[in-house]
Amino acid sequence: MYKNTTLCYLEQEGCWLMMHRIKKKNDVNQDKWVGIGGKFEIGESPEECLTREVYEETGLNLTDYRFRGVVTFVSDQWETEYMHLFSATGWTGEMIDGDACVEGKLEWVPKADVYDLPIWQGDKIFLHLLETRPEFFSLKLVYHGEALVQAVLDGKTIEI
Amino acid sequence: MYKNTTLCYLEQEGCWLMMHRIKKKNDVNQDKWVGIGGKFEIGESPEECLTREVYEETGLNLTDYRFRGVVTFVSDQWETEYMHLFSATGWTGEMIDGDACVEGKLEWVPKADVYDLPIWQGDKIFLHLLETRPEFFSLKLVYHGEALVQAVLDGKTIEI
Repeated sequence: MYKNTTLCYLEQEGCWLMMHRIKKKNDVNQDKWVGIGGKFEIGESPEECLTREVYEETGLNLTDYRFRGVVTFVSDQWETEYMHLFSATGWTGEMIDGDACVEGKLEWVPKADVYDLPIWQGDKIFLHLLETRPEFFSLKLVYHGEALVQAVLDGKTIEI
Repeated sequence: MYKNTTLCYLEQEGCWLMMHRIKKKNDVNQDKWVGIGGKFEIGESPEECLTREVYEETGLNLTDYRFRGVVTFVSDQWETEYMHLFSATGWTGEMIDGDACVEGKLEWVPKADVYDLPIWQGDKIFLHLLETRPEFFSLKLVYHGEALVQAVLDGKTIEI
């Protein structure tokens, strides 16, 4: 089977809000840096999952966000995941202390520096698309273990 | 749980290719007219499901298509469905005879006439979006039985 998830990159002053996943056990993202998100709950639309997850993990209520793409993750080790990717530039409320989130440690990181953090290889592809491409995209990423072996953008294989 | 599906509207000379679902038993769409599509198979991206389903149901190989939106269907009778909506304007191959498809009867129908066929109430909303909106959209449709009780576009409730 498969799971549907959301992932959001909140943007502020040239930074993305990143989560350093060092707190959960058996986490596919253990020790990696990712955006904010999680799994769809029953009957949720992508936007409902997005706003709930961002509130739960950061304390912020999103007021301005955009659905940027769908990323299909296929792996020889994990179940297939359809990740609904958002970016956000507006919210209300106070962000919780970066150390208080149960999922990981929150930190604003300059966009250019994010590429040098321990992140998944394929994440660099969709982060670059977030920075450069206004239109919606569909990206398929195939992993063998931690190695990205194929990337397909809008139905066409791209170089990795 | 939920299921992920694709649905495609092939466009030609002001018509959409419609399927009259009169052939399958226990079909949620029984006797209704819909586009071409079906369920994700293991590890498929939206585009892979799309091109496979269109080929299986019509004999056509899509060469030009666009991912237009995600539609979240929530119902008191059926499992939640995340439908990946495409339109297509280019293909190769010969279309099978309209009566030969095992899923239903295929027919080109002028777009304006589609709204008067027996179709789901919410389908009229996304068909209108296909006709008028170039940007990607996310639409949630909530049904009680055959009645549409709520429609939410990009996170905001709209009139129905």
